[in-house]
Amino acid sequence: MPKMKAAIFVEPGRIVLDEKPIPDVGPLDALVRVTTTTICGTDVHILKGEYPVAKGLTIGHEPVGVIEKLGSAVQGYREGQRVIAGAITPSGWSNACLCGSCSQDGAGTAHGWKPLGGWRFGNTIDGCQAEYVLVPDAMVNLAPVPDGLTDEQVLMCPDIMSTGFSGAESAGIRIGDIVAVFAQGPIGLCATAGAKLSGASTVIGVDRIAGRLEMAKKMGADHVVDSSRVDPVEEILRLTGGRGVDVAIEALGIQQTFEACLRVLRPGGTLSSLGVYSTDLTIPLGPFAAGLGDHKIITTLCPGGKERMRRLMAVIAANRIDLGAMVTHRFKLDDIEAAYELFGNQRDGVLKVAITP
Amino acid sequence: MPKMKAAIFVEPGRIVLDEKPIPDVGPLDALVRVTTTTICGTDVHILKGEYPVAKGLTIGHEPVGVIEKLGSAVQGYREGQRVIAGAITPSGWSNACLCGSCSQDGAGTAHGWKPLGGWRFGNTIDGCQAEYVLVPDAMVNLAPVPDGLTDEQVLMCPDIMSTGFSGAESAGIRIGDIVAVFAQGPIGLCATAGAKLSGASTVIGVDRIAGRLEMAKKMGADHVVDSSRVDPVEEILRLTGGRGVDVAIEALGIQQTFEACLRVLRPGGTLSSLGVYSTDLTIPLGPFAAGLGDHKIITTLCPGGKERMRRLMAVIAANRIDLGAMVTHRFKLDDIEAAYELFGNQRDGVLKVAITP
Amino acid sequence: MPKMKAAIFVEPGRIVLDEKPIPDVGPLDALVRVTTTTICGTDVHILKGEYPVAKGLTIGHEPVGVIEKLGSAVQGYREGQRVIAGAITPSGWSNACLCGSCSQDGAGTAHGWKPLGGWRFGNTIDGCQAEYVLVPDAMVNLAPVPDGLTDEQVLMCPDIMSTGFSGAESAGIRIGDIVAVFAQGPIGLCATAGAKLSGASTVIGVDRIAGRLEMAKKMGADHVVDSSRVDPVEEILRLTGGRGVDVAIEALGIQQTFEACLRVLRPGGTLSSLGVYSTDLTIPLGPFAAGLGDHKIITTLCPGGKERMRRLMAVIAANRIDLGAMVTHRFKLDDIEAAYELFGNQRDGVLKVAITP
Amino acid sequence: MPKMKAAIFVEPGRIVLDEKPIPDVGPLDALVRVTTTTICGTDVHILKGEYPVAKGLTIGHEPVGVIEKLGSAVQGYREGQRVIAGAITPSGWSNACLCGSCSQDGAGTAHGWKPLGGWRFGNTIDGCQAEYVLVPDAMVNLAPVPDGLTDEQVLMCPDIMSTGFSGAESAGIRIGDIVAVFAQGPIGLCATAGAKLSGASTVIGVDRIAGRLEMAKKMGADHVVDSSRVDPVEEILRLTGGRGVDVAIEALGIQQTFEACLRVLRPGGTLSSLGVYSTDLTIPLGPFAAGLGDHKIITTLCPGGKERMRRLMAVIAANRIDLGAMVTHRFKLDDIEAAYELFGNQRDGVLKVAITP
Repeated sequence: MPKMKAAIFVEPGRIVLDEKPIPDVGPLDALVRVTTTTICGTDVHILKGEYPVAKGLTIGHEPVGVIEKLGSAVQGYREGQRVIAGAITPSGWSNACLCGSCSQDGAGTAHGWKPLGGWRFGNTIDGCQAEYVLVPDAMVNLAPVPDGLTDEQVLMCPDIMSTGFSGAESAGIRIGDIVAVFAQGPIGLCATAGAKLSGASTVIGVDRIAGRLEMAKKMGADHVVDSSRVDPVEEILRLTGGRGVDVAIEALGIQQTFEACLRVLRPGGTLSSLGVYSTDLTIPLGPFAAGLGDHKIITTLCPGGKERMRRLMAVIAANRIDLGAMVTHRFKLDDIEAAYELFGNQRDGVLKVAITP
Repeated sequence: MPKMKAAIFVEPGRIVLDEKPIPDVGPLDALVRVTTTTICGTDVHILKGEYPVAKGLTIGHEPVGVIEKLGSAVQGYREGQRVIAGAITPSGWSNACLCGSCSQDGAGTAHGWKPLGGWRFGNTIDGCQAEYVLVPDAMVNLAPVPDGLTDEQVLMCPDIMSTGFSGAESAGIRIGDIVAVFAQGPIGLCATAGAKLSGASTVIGVDRIAGRLEMAKKMGADHVVDSSRVDPVEEILRLTGGRGVDVAIEALGIQQTFEACLRVLRPGGTLSSLGVYSTDLTIPLGPFAAGLGDHKIITTLCPGGKERMRRLMAVIAANRIDLGAMVTHRFKLDDIEAAYELFGNQRDGVLKVAITP
Repeated sequence: MPKMKAAIFVEPGRIVLDEKPIPDVGPLDALVRVTTTTICGTDVHILKGEYPVAKGLTIGHEPVGVIEKLGSAVQGYREGQRVIAGAITPSGWSNACLCGSCSQDGAGTAHGWKPLGGWRFGNTIDGCQAEYVLVPDAMVNLAPVPDGLTDEQVLMCPDIMSTGFSGAESAGIRIGDIVAVFAQGPIGLCATAGAKLSGASTVIGVDRIAGRLEMAKKMGADHVVDSSRVDPVEEILRLTGGRGVDVAIEALGIQQTFEACLRVLRPGGTLSSLGVYSTDLTIPLGPFAAGLGDHKIITTLCPGGKERMRRLMAVIAANRIDLGAMVTHRFKLDDIEAAYELFGNQRDGVLKVAITP
Repeated sequence: MPKMKAAIFVEPGRIVLDEKPIPDVGPLDALVRVTTTTICGTDVHILKGEYPVAKGLTIGHEPVGVIEKLGSAVQGYREGQRVIAGAITPSGWSNACLCGSCSQDGAGTAHGWKPLGGWRFGNTIDGCQAEYVLVPDAMVNLAPVPDGLTDEQVLMCPDIMSTGFSGAESAGIRIGDIVAVFAQGPIGLCATAGAKLSGASTVIGVDRIAGRLEMAKKMGADHVVDSSRVDPVEEILRLTGGRGVDVAIEALGIQQTFEACLRVLRPGGTLSSLGVYSTDLTIPLGPFAAGLGDHKIITTLCPGGKERMRRLMAVIAANRIDLGAMVTHRFKLDDIEAAYELFGNQRDGVLKVAITP
């Protein structure tokens, strides 16, 4: 049985590169040889033991690669084709999927719904920080990469871009809206770009790190607010003449930014939440107008599936956005433990790393 | 200067019937002789000093009456016409109104938005627990009562029905949805009715009071859950085979029911919140799926304006709902202090009282 | 190779009962033993040669039955289970499906879209007017029938109810809307019921046949208009005080009713079109306000898939609607040619026939 | 009584500059001294007698100016302030307005709806091709011009930009959509810009005039199609690999382009229609998929009101679009007859003219 290298969760604090068998290909699967992948903030949560996964699982949910082998029932693709798959790999047939709610895919449950059920790679099945990854429900999930796009250009599509953009999309941003985005890590930067791409006339990026604020400007922020120097709530209210913003996007996952979003919203505004929280949240009574402010709080988990990936790559191919600049560091798969060390500690101005097997 | 009787807020704990001048009628106003009005839970909050209003203010925001005098610039109505006006009386011209967000009407502010700004009666201007009420922006707010409908039949339109129905409407209930409504007071009962009227195939009403659960069945609940006897979260999960509900409506305004809503939602479900809260709220991490459950939390303040009132009265005229049964007690305006005593203490199975000057 | 009886299209004018092999079951398929089915107006179009299908094809797209055999890769069902499948049987994996547009399923095309592509039964694959039907993509399409519902109670779900309701749903009917439904055949009757179920306060049913107008009242019409006796446009404008309706549903498929819909719409109203047209259509300039009336014209093809079927059966199980009354005649499969003769000529007050193999 | 100069409709074929009294200012009005205005294609229809207006009416509906005098009941503005008003000047209080349908404002009708009722300037009341214009319902309609924006920069907001953008907005364009815009006159150019601003990844502009195709590229078209040289339907299907577009915007108002829109739509796509038609329209059966293609046809009349104007000016102030380039010619009001001659005959590459009193 041929072997491959894979980054495996051993126990909290330890993800190691080890050998695993190259997986068998079922009728609806595709085996993809990974050419580039990356590490996500969620992977760091897994590493730290904050998000539990099975010991021995291969980590990673952002694959770019080449089709190595197609399942017997898979049609419409050819071996050797360059593809990506989303971090979320829906089945296509659960009740959730048929409601358009693929991320909460409950394939296999009695009623067809399961929280986060669409997230399988590196969560409930082996992921893609490896030489090969088995893509389930291949016809639902494999998206061919348009000619002329490099691996790094599409590396953000599976998760970062899909999630960040969804923060703008779920909020229903309209032409002329004022939008604040709290935190300018990779997801927040993509939310900033997505807000601008959706027609917002004012996009305000908030972060504590100067390098990220610089990047925010490149991604489309009209104003940046350094929350290490000023109170971002006061500053945003000042910038908007006391009106507040139409949409506030939370892209960090902590109480402070969640609450700040509510505090800068105009009445009737929308809080679009992308962060992965690790504690209960408090909704402060005043900014919530005691429940009478016509507020909306909307959370979105990274949309997946091949059509989503196709759309995002089309946006890149049309030069609407350049996410290549987010790749600040590159590692061989052999050195992935070092990559985790760098990325997990946010050293050296890292935004995203590219891992190449 | 002719005088009229009015229920006036004197200080926390005291709303008294007193005399006031009958107001002058400005060019855009209408003076309405009140024929029937009622007391709202919000009025009890005011009475208790939990919601601050100016001393001397006339309370009440649910008027049914007859046009006594029209302002010089008001067209399209005639004196003697039977009308209602919503609890929310928008200006029609603020930026909020022109965004369709009339309840957050910021007429007079620099940017046109103000939390709860559309709520004027008994909040920022004199209300309708009086012999006469001055309706501002009359052409925006006066809705003629269709022939054949009695005062009591339309008495719920200005607030209770508009608010309760909006809980179903804001949630975007679709044909075949499963909906739970937490608390079956007047607002919750109307939310129950609104959910059924929107096509929900299963409506589950929750309360602790047997009489209210009985009324819930009349208003359209398919199942009722007595939360004094069973854990409503467990019961609803049982009723739905573990799936949870598509929409949960909060109609009480406390942490317990807010949280229960989240706990019974399927992934991707919507919490539609109507309650007036008096404390910060906690969002528990687990039911919120750490922010990854594609949840929506939507709050709605009672929609107002004459078109809203017209629609609601059309629903009643078409016999889609009978809210007359909610009027459990009747008082003369002269006895309104007794009415407050009864209603404020929820004695004698009271749902709503009718007050007739 | 075992044989079964099936109603087969031979040539325009001839659908005959003949023998065919019972089909083989592929890995994702399910073989269903049909217990009840029916004939649709579309089948009559096929019979007349107005809608072309391949010679030798088994007709019929409304199956109720029992699972006879499951494909090797199908999970979550058991043989012997009572099920229905929609007239539209999406793949679940085309780009169209992943956009929520399952009826235009382009599985197998380069880009994933195909007009009417989701309609396979009795169109591009063998249908269900037979002893057995092979259901493709079984996990996407098989919906278990709730205990206690008879075959005839759910017989309208696969097409008539799904289509009729979608006329109300696609129009975005809101509580209090005024809706006119042109033609009260089976689809129109379900549109009438769907409009009422969506909260319309006034539903106006139009037809030329007295028996259908009677049925329209049972299905929820508040007013019926006999277009053989009065001009329905004039009558509807009279009923609405010159205002017109918020939504007009076309359920016949001819120029006259399409145009009448536009003529009764208020400015900004929605024409929801369900009819299958057989000629070009004309939009008259005046009622269309020269393109400046903020009108919407929306067409909808019967939504399918198991989640849709589940919802519709839940509506029936909750006693929100009784469609059993639409079955006016019953035939054995052996007599299906007689059933076509009766139904195709609309004799004897027929609404729908039940066919039992 | 002081006089002013105004461009007046005398009879079909004759719009002349003449003197008129400066209008009196009612309590809710504002008198605006016009500093810049322009001529619209609709004005040319009026000139030719194709759209009837009263003899003696002042023409023009795109005002930029300075507040000369405020009505006694108008608050929130000051004399001397620079403002614009939309081509559509809603009342704010009709039932249509309260439904968010301001363009179909039926203020003064029994039911509150009137086709095109929101369009008053140069249609039912005196317009702005004059030294002064009386703005009705000033608090609904006056939008202050942000500092730093010139008259010409905001001259397109009242009509051209509002209409063109609405073509994109009403279609619900999503990030990654493919959009075709038929005709690249001023409205079509703004639709092209609006489509890009809404996140479309591919915008295809169609016209017969080389100069307009050049401008289309500047406004955001990724591809331009010269319909004088190639069949645009074939070309667009070629460009999209046979898939068709998600949204097609009609910006001319003739059968040929309306029909071409349908022919290039993917199944389930949206035809967003902006053109003012002068004949009945034909919907061809095939491209309409016999009514089964899940198509949407949506028409939109220029959205108005001060909040709309504020948003559009915010988009310009944020440098999201530069419409100044559309002003190809400039005239004094004294020479407006020459401006009509040039613009009406589309001579000299004219896109828009600026008229300064």
